Amino acid sequence: MERTAINPVTWSVDMGFHQGEMVSGHTRTLYLSGQTAMDGDGRPRHEGDMAAQLALSLDNVEAVLAGAGMTLAHLVRLNVYTTDVDLLFPHYGVLVSRLAAAGVAPATTMLGVTRLAVPGQLVELEGTAVA
Amino acid sequence: MERTAINPVTWSVDMGFHQGEMVSGHTRTLYLSGQTAMDGDGRPRHEGDMAAQLALSLDNVEAVLAGAGMTLAHLVRLNVYTTDVDLLFPHYGVLVSRLAAAGVAPATTMLGVTRLAVPGQLVELEGTAVA
Amino acid sequence: MERTAINPVTWSVDMGFHQGEMVSGHTRTLYLSGQTAMDGDGRPRHEGDMAAQLALSLDNVEAVLAGAGMTLAHLVRLNVYTTDVDLLFPHYGVLVSRLAAAGVAPATTMLGVTRLAVPGQLVELEGTAVA
Repeated sequence: MERTAINPVTWSVDMGFHQGEMVSGHTRTLYLSGQTAMDGDGRPRHEGDMAAQLALSLDNVEAVLAGAGMTLAHLVRLNVYTTDVDLLFPHYGVLVSRLAAAGVAPATTMLGVTRLAVPGQLVELEGTAVA
Repeated sequence: MERTAINPVTWSVDMGFHQGEMVSGHTRTLYLSGQTAMDGDGRPRHEGDMAAQLALSLDNVEAVLAGAGMTLAHLVRLNVYTTDVDLLFPHYGVLVSRLAAAGVAPATTMLGVTRLAVPGQLVELEGTAVA
Repeated sequence: MERTAINPVTWSVDMGFHQGEMVSGHTRTLYLSGQTAMDGDGRPRHEGDMAAQLALSLDNVEAVLAGAGMTLAHLVRLNVYTTDVDLLFPHYGVLVSRLAAAGVAPATTMLGVTRLAVPGQLVELEGTAVA
């Protein structure tokens, strides 16, 4: 597989995302459902705690990736949906650092939404990965 | 084509979606526009009726799939956008049962949004399919 | 690469999008981050000016595509997120005409959201392209 970061501008790289990710020669594509701060039985955790929700959501992204024999390093798109953009920003570094540790900066869109599926959930991560 | 459901947790399967869908060896990918409850002339139908809108939106997803020689069984991602998450839930079983009848549980993200393109539209379904 | 527009209904073509885009034989896929009206240094521009923001956002989409040796003609999905759907519509023709000039009408979903990442930004364009 060949993968090329496309950055006509560079301001976003330190924020954990490339402007574009071009891939070729990949043989597997993984579409991940949006991951929130649910435990293994589908119960929401950390109500109202953005930092803890973000960390657990990312753990859950990793768990789905692992089920496909992948890691965060295989993400080419990671969208971030939140009910409170301003509350998310102070904690966003956690996401950036875990992506950086994996050597990856997937294409990202962040949107403020009115609700996630489960009340009390504040952030959701939706990925696409290739290998 | 090979397609593998990825479920590090299993709570979502009865809710009509796998946590991940891994595909390989597919030769065609279909990107579908978000489908709402529009008739064949682009007129919105069933204003304010979530159940009817959800059913027609899914009919419209099927029509696009059919145009590409596909069915619901080929969906690997199906995102659900709604202006009223709480109103959608009591009707969500309709979606789940039609997906189940097709033997499929695509990766899904549900988001509450402020507006769809057409006022009065309550739900929108955005799919990606492979064959 | 083979690319086929799927239109069980035709009302959307004049609005700049096909109901579906089926692709096969493509060797490269480009995932683009959501593009807003940022300048080259990541500073938001045109606060409160929807027309100018839409034009610059589309310029930025083109810049990412160009970085991958692509143009608007390679877009197969272009999602449109806005904080004000009603304000966007009068300016939407700009987007439609630039897509038409490129001979393309990608699969599109438009959503009204509460916030984009940067306050004052009104519209965001998220693309996927193949070649």
